[in-house]
Amino acid sequence: MVLQNTQVCLASSPRGAATSDNFFLRQSPVPEIDDGEVLVRNIYLSCDPYMRGRMAAGTGYAAGFPLGGPIPARVVGQIMQSRHRNFSEGDFVWDFLRWENFTRVTDVRALRRIDPSLGPISHAISVLGMPGRTAEVGMIDIAGVKAGETVFVSAASGAVGSVAGQLAKAAGARVIGSAGTDEKVRHCLENLQYDAVFNYRKEPPGEALDRLCPEGVDIYFDNVGGETLDAVLARIQPFARIPVCGMISQYDGGDYSLRNAGNVVGKRAMIRGFIIYDHMQDFDLYPPRMVARMRRGEVRYFDDIVDGIENTPAAFIGMLRGDNIGKRLVRISDDPGSPTNHPENQRR
Amino acid sequence: MVLQNTQVCLASSPRGAATSDNFFLRQSPVPEIDDGEVLVRNIYLSCDPYMRGRMAAGTGYAAGFPLGGPIPARVVGQIMQSRHRNFSEGDFVWDFLRWENFTRVTDVRALRRIDPSLGPISHAISVLGMPGRTAEVGMIDIAGVKAGETVFVSAASGAVGSVAGQLAKAAGARVIGSAGTDEKVRHCLENLQYDAVFNYRKEPPGEALDRLCPEGVDIYFDNVGGETLDAVLARIQPFARIPVCGMISQYDGGDYSLRNAGNVVGKRAMIRGFIIYDHMQDFDLYPPRMVARMRRGEVRYFDDIVDGIENTPAAFIGMLRGDNIGKRLVRISDDPGSPTNHPENQRR
Repeated sequence: MVLQNTQVCLASSPRGAATSDNFFLRQSPVPEIDDGEVLVRNIYLSCDPYMRGRMAAGTGYAAGFPLGGPIPARVVGQIMQSRHRNFSEGDFVWDFLRWENFTRVTDVRALRRIDPSLGPISHAISVLGMPGRTAEVGMIDIAGVKAGETVFVSAASGAVGSVAGQLAKAAGARVIGSAGTDEKVRHCLENLQYDAVFNYRKEPPGEALDRLCPEGVDIYFDNVGGETLDAVLARIQPFARIPVCGMISQYDGGDYSLRNAGNVVGKRAMIRGFIIYDHMQDFDLYPPRMVARMRRGEVRYFDDIVDGIENTPAAFIGMLRGDNIGKRLVRISDDPGSPTNHPENQRR
Repeated sequence: MVLQNTQVCLASSPRGAATSDNFFLRQSPVPEIDDGEVLVRNIYLSCDPYMRGRMAAGTGYAAGFPLGGPIPARVVGQIMQSRHRNFSEGDFVWDFLRWENFTRVTDVRALRRIDPSLGPISHAISVLGMPGRTAEVGMIDIAGVKAGETVFVSAASGAVGSVAGQLAKAAGARVIGSAGTDEKVRHCLENLQYDAVFNYRKEPPGEALDRLCPEGVDIYFDNVGGETLDAVLARIQPFARIPVCGMISQYDGGDYSLRNAGNVVGKRAMIRGFIIYDHMQDFDLYPPRMVARMRRGEVRYFDDIVDGIENTPAAFIGMLRGDNIGKRLVRISDDPGSPTNHPENQRR
């Protein structure tokens, strides 16, 4: 059997909402490796909101993705061939690789080994990886959540928000969430320990907050920006903290002007944008810390898995639209890595 | 001679720009005092932007000013009569008193004695008082200015901004300012050590910043909010800090929507509102620290003094319009307190 390397490439920068025309699939040979390198068979490809920003030139915080090539993304895979003494065939690893089946890793310094005894290997790029750590940095390091506070999380069932909400709950806060479908609302209430959740497509955020937390908001974990952020700014308590790790409502061509920013003075509020890459210096301590929380039942996590590399563009576009419940991943080859299928952690 | 106590009272809450109709003068007898109290002859009345907010019910961060009574404000005065063992006739003091000639102080715990050897006694409510400390909290405690950074200060010649800019300069930053008249621009360049200053009424802030600091802004000390804040948000450097101590453009009925707030994520910026009353725990250490800076030539300060209690409403309204250069005060009686007139520190 001759293996093919399917690559999902960027055809053009999206204008407005991303569409399938912005992507194309390409077949190329499986790469060969030299001494000191490894070949990874990719298993899970990550679909993250920030990638939308990097598909448009000049809009984002990092270099834009080049047109015509496979799209850079976090990937979980297995070492298929190793010519580096630190890695052996069969090791599970994750790294920033590409949306493709096989990646030749010429510089292994950033390649991290995954311990499959900790849970599903996909978790290395979801709850035990950047999305989970993003929630922790925002809710604990930046916002410093305390017992008794009122916390609001938008995109409450998402890859990051679902962890942020549960971390706040574990700290003793009262936690309100918003999500875009009734199914997500139910999921937040039944599986993610939220105290109250509303469907922002059915009820304006301001009205919902007045109903669910008339006393106002101490912490808003902002994943969306726009109208929701504005509604919160009108309802913040003194010394409110608003860690902002994304404004998904504005990535996909959205546009919104904040009317209530003046309230940050009177309420002595802090709005702080952050990017997880600035908080990587002690990243290795994070996965065991989160595993301990999960074993104590403080955090449950749900990957939202789509199968087939050819479905990656649609999986990504759907994630931007909010189709996913939990962390959106594409499984592109067999996952032998997880000791069990952890059915309670994989809804689909 | 029978002394009269003229009081400047709030007639109505301003709608839009404050006008003289919002105020009235009232004559009342000089108060008598009981044991444990003092009578203060007021000398300098403070006119501060935040007071505009407190004249409108329900808009601000502190209880609104009551209608019909003398307006609460910081005051420098002299003890005229004392029945409290801690204070003697002739002592110079400051406190939150009222816009009036004579104030009976029934609770002396917040009354602070002024050392006239430190400079003009008016400085107790300007550079050595809340406005100066506001600049220090914002520029040093919150923004943590560092050598080599690019700092932008709006209301650059004002009571707070003029100190903020000079503190940044003393820390080794490059400091850009904006002001609303050519006279203020000149004053900033000649007397306040700014590296570059523009007149925001003649040049849009965005264009001026592109011209004066094309590399972008590390710290924006925000006194005004609105369009200027928006222009800065489009031009922040990574890890920018924006301490916000006021949004004078929005106090007087202004209204503005921020378009560029989304940039705080990509640039990992922090916007933090603060109010000086939350930073009073070590206030007594501040005046000697600032006096030392002034003696080293790092900070020069200019009070903008209007004479006559009957002119207080006009002095206040003019300050909101930007007539003042430096800290707007009203001198309502003789100032015997300053060892010299410190002419270099009093422009008018």
